[in-house]
Amino acid sequence: MWMLRIDMTDRSYKLEEVAERYQKLGGRGLTSTLIHDEVDPTCHPLGPNNKLVFSAGILSGTPSPSSSRISIGGKSPLTGGIKESNSGAGFAPALARMRVKAVVVEGQPAEKGAYWMVHLTWDGDKPAVEFLPAAEYVGEDLYVSYAKLYERFGKRVHVAGVGKAGELGYRNSGVAFDDMRHKPTRFSGRGGLGAVMASKGLKFVVLNSEGAPGVEYADKELFMQGAKKLRAALGEHALTKPQGALNTYGTCVLVNIINEAGAFPTRNFRTGRFAGAAKISGEAIFENNKQRMGKEIYNHACSPGCVIQCSNTIYAENGEEIVSCVEYESDWALGANCGIDDLDAIAKMVKLCNAYSLDTIETGDAIAVAMDSGLLEFGDAEGAIALIEQMGHGEPLGRILGGGTQATADAFGNPRSPAVKGQGMPAYEPRAIKGIGVTYATSTMGADHTAGYTIAPEIAGSGGKVDPLLADASKADLSRAFQKTTAMLDSTGHCLFISFAILDIPSGFEGMIEELNGMLGTHYTGDEAVAWGGEILKVERAFNEAAGLTPVDDRLPEFMKYEQLPPHDVVADVSDEIMDQVYGEL
Amino acid sequence: MWMLRIDMTDRSYKLEEVAERYQKLGGRGLTSTLIHDEVDPTCHPLGPNNKLVFSAGILSGTPSPSSSRISIGGKSPLTGGIKESNSGAGFAPALARMRVKAVVVEGQPAEKGAYWMVHLTWDGDKPAVEFLPAAEYVGEDLYVSYAKLYERFGKRVHVAGVGKAGELGYRNSGVAFDDMRHKPTRFSGRGGLGAVMASKGLKFVVLNSEGAPGVEYADKELFMQGAKKLRAALGEHALTKPQGALNTYGTCVLVNIINEAGAFPTRNFRTGRFAGAAKISGEAIFENNKQRMGKEIYNHACSPGCVIQCSNTIYAENGEEIVSCVEYESDWALGANCGIDDLDAIAKMVKLCNAYSLDTIETGDAIAVAMDSGLLEFGDAEGAIALIEQMGHGEPLGRILGGGTQATADAFGNPRSPAVKGQGMPAYEPRAIKGIGVTYATSTMGADHTAGYTIAPEIAGSGGKVDPLLADASKADLSRAFQKTTAMLDSTGHCLFISFAILDIPSGFEGMIEELNGMLGTHYTGDEAVAWGGEILKVERAFNEAAGLTPVDDRLPEFMKYEQLPPHDVVADVSDEIMDQVYGEL
Repeated sequence: MWMLRIDMTDRSYKLEEVAERYQKLGGRGLTSTLIHDEVDPTCHPLGPNNKLVFSAGILSGTPSPSSSRISIGGKSPLTGGIKESNSGAGFAPALARMRVKAVVVEGQPAEKGAYWMVHLTWDGDKPAVEFLPAAEYVGEDLYVSYAKLYERFGKRVHVAGVGKAGELGYRNSGVAFDDMRHKPTRFSGRGGLGAVMASKGLKFVVLNSEGAPGVEYADKELFMQGAKKLRAALGEHALTKPQGALNTYGTCVLVNIINEAGAFPTRNFRTGRFAGAAKISGEAIFENNKQRMGKEIYNHACSPGCVIQCSNTIYAENGEEIVSCVEYESDWALGANCGIDDLDAIAKMVKLCNAYSLDTIETGDAIAVAMDSGLLEFGDAEGAIALIEQMGHGEPLGRILGGGTQATADAFGNPRSPAVKGQGMPAYEPRAIKGIGVTYATSTMGADHTAGYTIAPEIAGSGGKVDPLLADASKADLSRAFQKTTAMLDSTGHCLFISFAILDIPSGFEGMIEELNGMLGTHYTGDEAVAWGGEILKVERAFNEAAGLTPVDDRLPEFMKYEQLPPHDVVADVSDEIMDQVYGEL
Repeated sequence: MWMLRIDMTDRSYKLEEVAERYQKLGGRGLTSTLIHDEVDPTCHPLGPNNKLVFSAGILSGTPSPSSSRISIGGKSPLTGGIKESNSGAGFAPALARMRVKAVVVEGQPAEKGAYWMVHLTWDGDKPAVEFLPAAEYVGEDLYVSYAKLYERFGKRVHVAGVGKAGELGYRNSGVAFDDMRHKPTRFSGRGGLGAVMASKGLKFVVLNSEGAPGVEYADKELFMQGAKKLRAALGEHALTKPQGALNTYGTCVLVNIINEAGAFPTRNFRTGRFAGAAKISGEAIFENNKQRMGKEIYNHACSPGCVIQCSNTIYAENGEEIVSCVEYESDWALGANCGIDDLDAIAKMVKLCNAYSLDTIETGDAIAVAMDSGLLEFGDAEGAIALIEQMGHGEPLGRILGGGTQATADAFGNPRSPAVKGQGMPAYEPRAIKGIGVTYATSTMGADHTAGYTIAPEIAGSGGKVDPLLADASKADLSRAFQKTTAMLDSTGHCLFISFAILDIPSGFEGMIEELNGMLGTHYTGDEAVAWGGEILKVERAFNEAAGLTPVDDRLPEFMKYEQLPPHDVVADVSDEIMDQVYGEL
């Protein structure tokens, strides 16, 4: 396998052997370790000394189910710390098939505002790169650009790209990957890595793996045995089986559940219940589609090899697709958090975010903060859509919101900023679900539900049932365990949604470990694999400490400590000591 | 003496005895110690748990020369750390005469956007407070408001107030004090304390000291002896004597000197020499005024009892006053740093900043960053004026710039942000004058020339001559010595401009120490007084550490490390180790 280094200063590249330290790594484990090893933690995220690393998961490119996650890493312009953001996309298996362990993008051109694309192909016996001008795509709607790219390079390529939000240097810009229909809808959205990519003058990576040799296994038999067990567990679990909860209602199945728990942040985290929740729920999406299309429509896969298939499509009254997909987080951020219960409007906003390469969570949070600051009324869907347009056009108000949740709150002098380490919170109220609050506060990534999804036990009862309102030290243990496991999973290339099956079905977990050992030639036990996740967290934490982050950054926002959240009338009351135990005992 | 606590939550107040810990403190020493003792370092600066403290210098209200400095302290919304910002104003001696050691403003009203003023008077035997509605002044030009206030309360009151920038929550808003002609031109400008004041619903403090008993001396004779020596030294030194450099050319006398040194930051710190420097110099101001007014016009005092009298007035062609005063820092920030060499335009901008209660340094830096980001051309004075108007009107672009230098750079994705701890740099290039760079980097206040003015030896040769380009460990010692002395001076109520006389004339320094001991009944030696300054720095540093600041925050911006500054083609090369020695050896 190779490390592919791309230097955007002079648009050169080189293939390197993979150093021993990196050979058993992939995905998040590799992006974070490389960033830790090679990037000055004090560098400016948009300056020449930051790097952007792409790495497919260890199991990407194999028949392992739901394993096509691509990780991107760098120093985040949003959090000032390390960032890994992953996405399910065909890009991951394609990169793996080319035996490129990581693409490391370095430097930046002297000329600002000039853009190129990297065309990565298989050159008979190794990967090869050419640099093509990308000026013609600058400022363009990504749906338009991707259609042009697929017209130009054929349907078998995969694309990573940045849109207007990245070009404008927004801290809430993501990197877009193509979905199964070649549209720019799968995002490494969080933390502003789109701006990092754009700051390097890199507009697209177009990857053509034709002719590539495919992945190598250390022990293919063991791998295949594990993959089979995991596939069986996923097919059996109520959440992940065909026509199960996720395949039917998508991730938006959570709307009613979290709302019922009083933990559905509404109108910039002013209450935990939204009167309009049912109207934007997964059930409503399924019923709407059935009514509008005259048949039951189950969801589809975001990436090759996914058996869970949870991506919905939102159809308009006239049967035309508005967008695919509206995830629970986007639905919530642009919906309930803005007081908006109009599903079609939410779908339009998601499409705009995709077109401009905006992170939907950060965008919804920022709009909600602007509403909370009096800029417009909660529930004003047209106003919210106009704001996203202003973001896409680089208008001054758009630049404010493009800075994300914290920047918007700061611009309006509003202390009610639901952010940790500068990153806006996702769709679970940390006052009402204490464990996820510990994850938000302490994650190396800023407020991030995917970093340690304690919702599984606290709400779904997966892996045992835990009281969400309990604020004792057990929540540090819970969050730590989930953060470690997640860092491991994010390295395998698996989707986090295999968690339910591996938590609840012992053979599922066993299968995943067998896959990993079969692939790498390792002999990890389950505990060792989780401990390996902990090592990744240590590397990330070391970077953050050197970047100037301290325990003060591992806290929930102050307003949540003195402002009671209805309906449970709870405040953020997990103590600082408990927060510090998460990493203190890593 | 009393501590006056004002609670803006319910608009109540109480007078307290001064605790022993605070009895020998005043000015910065007192504001910083109170903030350290009473404010949670992790609180939101604009939330209910921050406090705003006013304290006159220890010698304010006495015949000590140039001692009318009023300090304001709080947690800064700009730096996230502790902030003390002082101003020369009649407010200081008036507060001292009322024997109010500190005014501590706490809490905030539940109703946002409601404003009151505090009317502080002498009630026969003690200070008394009434809370008056201030709605009629909201959104108003401060020149208009102050004229109304003096009309309403009479010419003998003093006023502290915030304008539109504070109401809008801008991190570059200051607190305005009245000058000798009752205009809102003397600012505690830096660090956004205007927004803190406004966040408490406090629009003005109107202070009427009529009937107040005046200050008490421990040993009046010793005090008078010291004051006499200091006054003599000030009258003798070339910089501070009548019709000396400062009285003739004002602080803008530095323009040609710093430009000559290649350390005059030009066009957002792209070069150290400005072709238009002579046109905006102190000499040019003096000559312009002479030509326009038909006579030589020497400068006036900013506050009662000042013998240096360095405040200029800028007159238009038609003989009308444009503004008073244009300080060197404002002249530079809104001039050279924006590539503007039009003195009248600069004067207009200073007046606008005063009217809106904007910090001129932060405003000029932010405009220069916007220019550097392509928003408008360097040198575009009309464009710059329009930007300040947009700031005053709360327009989106104005809100971006109202966030200050770093926020503007972030909004435009520009790594060239000349800021430390979020605060924009003043008028000395740290690459070309290494000692001031050490002060910028390590000061508890963010980039602040007044925190440790090594320009005295590095450029003026005051207190010995030091090579400005030398980047060795001696610069840590130099900066530390100046930072300690400054913390002490900022507590006495003295203007920093006594530094030249006390550095160069031994009897001047001796006199200052005698004043202090005469006032307080202490027996400080000179060294002990400086050590006491060090104790103040420790308290500030402790607050900042608890607020989450680390040595990473004690660094110059990364771009200065790789971008050479003409004409000396120097980079920021004082090592991290040397930076860390400043406080490491405190």
